Amino acid sequence: MTVETATHSTLEGFSPAELALSTRNHGLPLEALRYDVTPLGLHYLLTHFDIPHVDPGSWSLAIGGHVGKPLSVTLDELKERPQVTFVCTLECAGNGRARLSPRPLSQPWLEEAVGTAEWTGTPLRLLLEEAQIEEGAVEVLFTGLDRGIQGDSEHAFERSLSLEDALRPEVVLAYAINGQPLPPQHGFPLRLIVPGWYGMAHVKWLDRITVLTEPFQGYQQAHQYRRKHSEEDSGVPLTRMLPRSLLIPPGIPDFPDRQRFLATGPCVLEGRAWSGWGPVVRVEVSVDGGQSWQDATLEEAVAEFGWARWTYSWEVVGSGDYELCSRATDAVGNVQPVEPAWNFGGYVNNAVQRVPVTVR
Amino acid sequence: MTVETATHSTLEGFSPAELALSTRNHGLPLEALRYDVTPLGLHYLLTHFDIPHVDPGSWSLAIGGHVGKPLSVTLDELKERPQVTFVCTLECAGNGRARLSPRPLSQPWLEEAVGTAEWTGTPLRLLLEEAQIEEGAVEVLFTGLDRGIQGDSEHAFERSLSLEDALRPEVVLAYAINGQPLPPQHGFPLRLIVPGWYGMAHVKWLDRITVLTEPFQGYQQAHQYRRKHSEEDSGVPLTRMLPRSLLIPPGIPDFPDRQRFLATGPCVLEGRAWSGWGPVVRVEVSVDGGQSWQDATLEEAVAEFGWARWTYSWEVVGSGDYELCSRATDAVGNVQPVEPAWNFGGYVNNAVQRVPVTVR
Repeated sequence: MTVETATHSTLEGFSPAELALSTRNHGLPLEALRYDVTPLGLHYLLTHFDIPHVDPGSWSLAIGGHVGKPLSVTLDELKERPQVTFVCTLECAGNGRARLSPRPLSQPWLEEAVGTAEWTGTPLRLLLEEAQIEEGAVEVLFTGLDRGIQGDSEHAFERSLSLEDALRPEVVLAYAINGQPLPPQHGFPLRLIVPGWYGMAHVKWLDRITVLTEPFQGYQQAHQYRRKHSEEDSGVPLTRMLPRSLLIPPGIPDFPDRQRFLATGPCVLEGRAWSGWGPVVRVEVSVDGGQSWQDATLEEAVAEFGWARWTYSWEVVGSGDYELCSRATDAVGNVQPVEPAWNFGGYVNNAVQRVPVTVR
Repeated sequence: MTVETATHSTLEGFSPAELALSTRNHGLPLEALRYDVTPLGLHYLLTHFDIPHVDPGSWSLAIGGHVGKPLSVTLDELKERPQVTFVCTLECAGNGRARLSPRPLSQPWLEEAVGTAEWTGTPLRLLLEEAQIEEGAVEVLFTGLDRGIQGDSEHAFERSLSLEDALRPEVVLAYAINGQPLPPQHGFPLRLIVPGWYGMAHVKWLDRITVLTEPFQGYQQAHQYRRKHSEEDSGVPLTRMLPRSLLIPPGIPDFPDRQRFLATGPCVLEGRAWSGWGPVVRVEVSVDGGQSWQDATLEEAVAEFGWARWTYSWEVVGSGDYELCSRATDAVGNVQPVEPAWNFGGYVNNAVQRVPVTVR
């Protein structure tokens, strides 16, 4: 089975295949950064293959592999287990891809592939303990019900975590979002949430969980979602989100170009910042395209794994063109770069956002 | 010879501005055609300018103009009025635009700009009667809180209906969708629903309603949302949805091209069809790109103004490439064309969908 595609484009224009992805996957309209918790329907959405249809009456989760006591658990049985509810920011590993050149041909995100939701579920760790992981286990594999073809291989979407990461207390099997049962697009009836990690780890439409004695070598683990220099480079696996800050474009837009226009006078810039490596400790703002930076006022994060709001009072004195930017620094010292860092798959491009505005 | 002008493009590639629209506006992933009522978050979404933030505590709806008794009504007061709940299919007037050539530069929908929701609200007619429309009124204008620039004009998004259309019993001021308060993107706290009409009529984030003695000549009425041959042509206003049928692409997709692959054997094709001009009375299916057509089995529509499900049993006998199409005919005799009909703004292109599949 061969599907021949070019892998990269240097054209300014986006291909019909990129558009087809972009019409079905959903970005966060940036004005929705104003909400602590993203309203349902505004959270970003990347569906790798198709959204599968799951009959909850016949669905159950299988937990097997290198365990002493394999389990099969229905949705009702999962809901009877200890329940946790928490807020978590989630970002696609491909966010920023459309800003790279040559551009990797995949979902062409600009910078809107993010959202923050309140998830409810049961800790994975408790289920794994119940299944009695045996000596020699090294990874836990999560297999979704979504199926397709990529890299000449037909497969279900599946990803693994190291045993250590899988046993972290914040890793949860979620069956509700924002107080409601998961809608189909967010993984009904059950998905994994790995707080702090890019979206590919949060496997949706879970079918089974398998404890492994060897590292998983499936396509979405060994070939995709790695930061690599070339197709042949084995690269480095993607894990936690690098810091990013986004601002709500101020003023009013034009249609269809979405250029921004605002008036002179005081303007409070507002945005959100997050990192999977620790709290964001600093957000800086530039109104001159990154030539000079001033500190923004950073609020406390909405949750341990949630984004933080920031504001910056901009006194807009003169008409003309400005380019607004913001950049975040996290507690372990990661800072957003001013220029994108290219890589083969177009991942983790957390270069600063640039928002041109015209003051009139 | 390929060109891009300010208004149209003959380039195969989509411009950065088209991509920016496509990442923030949301299409219906076509596998979601399986649901009678589209789950929240999968309904199509076209935000003309920005999603405004509305404080429901200070918001009220003003009803004025050529009336005897101007009103100001809070959200709670609206909810105390007679309440109706109904299912309605809604489609963007620009659906199919990306299939036209030269391509009008605007939101580049392929064919996924549709959804079906259950709306709850209060009939507009009752409020208009309460406000006592005076002799000489000809139109009712609906003004949203969303604001931007288009055609060198800064304006709020606003559209009018003839008095006759505004008084139709099915026209509703809606404050809930699928049993929940409107989320911001669907027009919180209040929007208009005009069953059977394209989306531009369903004004979101309502600020005020004004009864007029002259036809409204605002930008979104007199210049946009008209079927016209050229920029100068005054054209014909868009109203009701032309018939369209869409099918759920069968088999499994590849990533990132979303080509479809399926096996030989029985395959039940399934889709939805709708028209704003009356019930859909016939759906035909072609598996050879429109050379030959067979009747599908058409189910009853989910509601008076909702889409109807259809199925077609396809016996897939040989491997190779197929092109699947479906077309709808409505009760007043409108039939979907096989080829797109070009117009300046790229509206109402209801040419049949084409789904290439490879049987292996």
